[in-house]
Amino acid sequence: MPDDFTDFVSIQLVKDRKNPLYVQLYQAIVLLIKNRQLAPGYLLPPVRKFAAFLKINASTVVNAYKELENAGYIFSRAGSGSYIADLPTIVDKEEPVELIDSTPEDPEIRSLANDQSLINMASISLNPDIVSIEKFKQVMIEVLDRDQGYAFSYQESQGFLPLRESIARYLNNGGVKASIESVQIISGAQQGIDIVARALLNHGDYVFVEAPTYPGAIAAFRSRGAKIIDIPLEEDGINIEELEKKLRSFRPKLIYVMPNIQNPTGISYSIEKRNRLMGLARYYNVFLLEDDYISELSYLDSPRAPLKALDRDDRVIYLKSFSKIFMPGLRLAFLTMPKSLASKLLNVKHLSDISTSGLTQRVFDLYLRRSIWQKHIAAIRQVYQAQFEFTCQCAKKHLPAGISYIKPSGGLSLWLELPNQVSAAKVTAQAKLDGVLLTEGSTFFPRQSADRYIRVSFATISLQEIDAGFQIFAQAMKKCTS
Amino acid sequence: MPDDFTDFVSIQLVKDRKNPLYVQLYQAIVLLIKNRQLAPGYLLPPVRKFAAFLKINASTVVNAYKELENAGYIFSRAGSGSYIADLPTIVDKEEPVELIDSTPEDPEIRSLANDQSLINMASISLNPDIVSIEKFKQVMIEVLDRDQGYAFSYQESQGFLPLRESIARYLNNGGVKASIESVQIISGAQQGIDIVARALLNHGDYVFVEAPTYPGAIAAFRSRGAKIIDIPLEEDGINIEELEKKLRSFRPKLIYVMPNIQNPTGISYSIEKRNRLMGLARYYNVFLLEDDYISELSYLDSPRAPLKALDRDDRVIYLKSFSKIFMPGLRLAFLTMPKSLASKLLNVKHLSDISTSGLTQRVFDLYLRRSIWQKHIAAIRQVYQAQFEFTCQCAKKHLPAGISYIKPSGGLSLWLELPNQVSAAKVTAQAKLDGVLLTEGSTFFPRQSADRYIRVSFATISLQEIDAGFQIFAQAMKKCTS
Repeated sequence: MPDDFTDFVSIQLVKDRKNPLYVQLYQAIVLLIKNRQLAPGYLLPPVRKFAAFLKINASTVVNAYKELENAGYIFSRAGSGSYIADLPTIVDKEEPVELIDSTPEDPEIRSLANDQSLINMASISLNPDIVSIEKFKQVMIEVLDRDQGYAFSYQESQGFLPLRESIARYLNNGGVKASIESVQIISGAQQGIDIVARALLNHGDYVFVEAPTYPGAIAAFRSRGAKIIDIPLEEDGINIEELEKKLRSFRPKLIYVMPNIQNPTGISYSIEKRNRLMGLARYYNVFLLEDDYISELSYLDSPRAPLKALDRDDRVIYLKSFSKIFMPGLRLAFLTMPKSLASKLLNVKHLSDISTSGLTQRVFDLYLRRSIWQKHIAAIRQVYQAQFEFTCQCAKKHLPAGISYIKPSGGLSLWLELPNQVSAAKVTAQAKLDGVLLTEGSTFFPRQSADRYIRVSFATISLQEIDAGFQIFAQAMKKCTS
Repeated sequence: MPDDFTDFVSIQLVKDRKNPLYVQLYQAIVLLIKNRQLAPGYLLPPVRKFAAFLKINASTVVNAYKELENAGYIFSRAGSGSYIADLPTIVDKEEPVELIDSTPEDPEIRSLANDQSLINMASISLNPDIVSIEKFKQVMIEVLDRDQGYAFSYQESQGFLPLRESIARYLNNGGVKASIESVQIISGAQQGIDIVARALLNHGDYVFVEAPTYPGAIAAFRSRGAKIIDIPLEEDGINIEELEKKLRSFRPKLIYVMPNIQNPTGISYSIEKRNRLMGLARYYNVFLLEDDYISELSYLDSPRAPLKALDRDDRVIYLKSFSKIFMPGLRLAFLTMPKSLASKLLNVKHLSDISTSGLTQRVFDLYLRRSIWQKHIAAIRQVYQAQFEFTCQCAKKHLPAGISYIKPSGGLSLWLELPNQVSAAKVTAQAKLDGVLLTEGSTFFPRQSADRYIRVSFATISLQEIDAGFQIFAQAMKKCTS
């Protein structure tokens, strides 16, 4: 029995949200088998000892062994242990399937996988530990018992009727008038932006966006061949003079805005600017796409209603993701359709993926009806408000003079402006060398931006890491200016 | 206590896969409340008696009452029953949310909801009863216990790595060489076609399709402004002479084909035509999109491998839905990406909806690894093969001379050709009046087709209904020819 574990020293497991530990272990062992480092008949270490050696839970080893057995790589003998099997069929074929590493496209996650010691101030995904698995299980089982096979049947493209009803009620309670007919269920906010772009924009059409803005929206508009005009943001919302000037020249089809807790700046529009924006949209007869990115995570005493609440002539398409601050991997969002666009939007949705998962819709319907979602939001708001306050304190304490930011009204990040002569790209690169992942601001601008913005997130890290992160960030700044 | 149920005679519940009975009951009662037919304080009937009156399960009434209580429409007093509450807040607002009926876009389902007595020979969705809910529950719980919050985290756009590995292995076992890197997970086959169209086709590009073909593909290609050229199908596959002639003239970017159990004809390509098609695609340097629509439901003794198995120079994009004959509402499929298209396809997928539900991917990964999917397929193949044989017998027995069809190699329907002078539109309309839903063939042609094709499905009906359906169909034919 390999009590010294020398055959396994090459195994390196890292916490990675995209690739569970048991899968990594599975892959590592398969690799050892394929490289003939573990021969058929080799006795694998007992679960507990192996787990202790790898510093992981025993259940992770159990799961990896189970998968290895399912795939035919190992076999078990009762009371004696798990052995490497003869190579399974697949390996004997001419071109065996190669096991490759997960190569996630997000640079921060790739780095994270390479080096656990980095402090991740780039990710704005929620901490996975924050979701109650037990509650989800319970609701899922209830839905399956209730609807049986119908839970898996085709769902109508517009969405599961009871969920649309729940959402309409949720909106009405929040001051937004919406009918069940106007609600279109979609597979996440990105799909919503894409569908609106496809239904509304043709090659050469103009679309206005805030600068900075969400890069996924820029990509969706570009994919339609639309021309993107960016309007600068100010502390209290979009620059209205600039907007009006550009409206006179370009006559866009669509204005894409995030009036509450804007991404990436975190600012919220003043009441005055909301009204001016609505008035201009009406005067120039242009549709507004309001992306309600994360308004539930407002840290203001009195959060503001969506722009949609001010919509008197059905020109605001209100887009809201439920999954983002809940279960981003589930892909669930909705948009409200102006009557004049409803059939077009529904057609594009049908074209895109027929419908959103009916099972997910049925589960989330109960989350809304029973206020499980609402309670979840209240709970995480409390957690993140504490993180947020602490982040602001650390920023103040550690960051050198010259770096400024507008205190955001909510969300999971700060948007920092560096002094004029300092390059954000350089600081970001230096900070990474020193152990902190930051997001360079230039990706949030549709065209070349001044190289002096950085987004700092506190979504997935501890208070200690926030403090340490800002210290390293400050040092990196110093190195880049001296 | 309303033991005579006169207040509820207006309630009509119909089995409808898009709107569960308990929701219908909920909606019916809400309507009665809103129309003031049930006043606040009114005592609702006891569950069992109400269920008996409505001829539904008691649990359906329980669920409806539960939802009514959650929504604030009723309240319960222990030991005394459920009472209508004062109207909930939402109703008091200026513009109450209106409860509308579900209006599914599929004509057959709309009709079904209106009249249960219709025999549905139009739907090709599987019978919902065929899926094992218990197995799904068990696997879902296992995944949640194993991955915890990570099951809900963002999934990389290409798909959950272990699932891509399972799929690569599944393909290799089936004779198709595929690497894990080449597998892209998508949210159903329609999304796959749409993504390929967006990655490959620009305005004015030519794309070739079979005639008849899947209408969702035509819509996706049209949405790109592509020009669609249709090539007639013959008993053994696409008309090769016609294909070659058109290839010389038009130089398309893409040929969209279903070489196994084509939709809607059910034919499968001969080996010779497969080779000719591959050769022509190579010579004219054009990509092939192979839509493996339902090849698992082959009733041939030796089902044919996908066209992709013949692909020597990486020009076949192989597209396969797992959800279609499994759980269509779950939206899960994959495609294999030629190396030269991989980054483009991945970008369009990311643009479309970031990623497919990670939870669904994790569950389905175990279905493949443990051969649960494979066993499911074997089981339903047996069920449907019997339906299929019986359908062919009934067609022979009841249909008048002059109607012909090619015996399909698998699937869930027959594709009938009427005699020249008979209008398929008229026969379909007459059959509907007489109680049978058929699908008129013209929707499957990209341009005006001869009005003489009808698709007859046996997916959701009993043997008795198949027999009765063909009798009515035959009578309708007679009425339309006399």
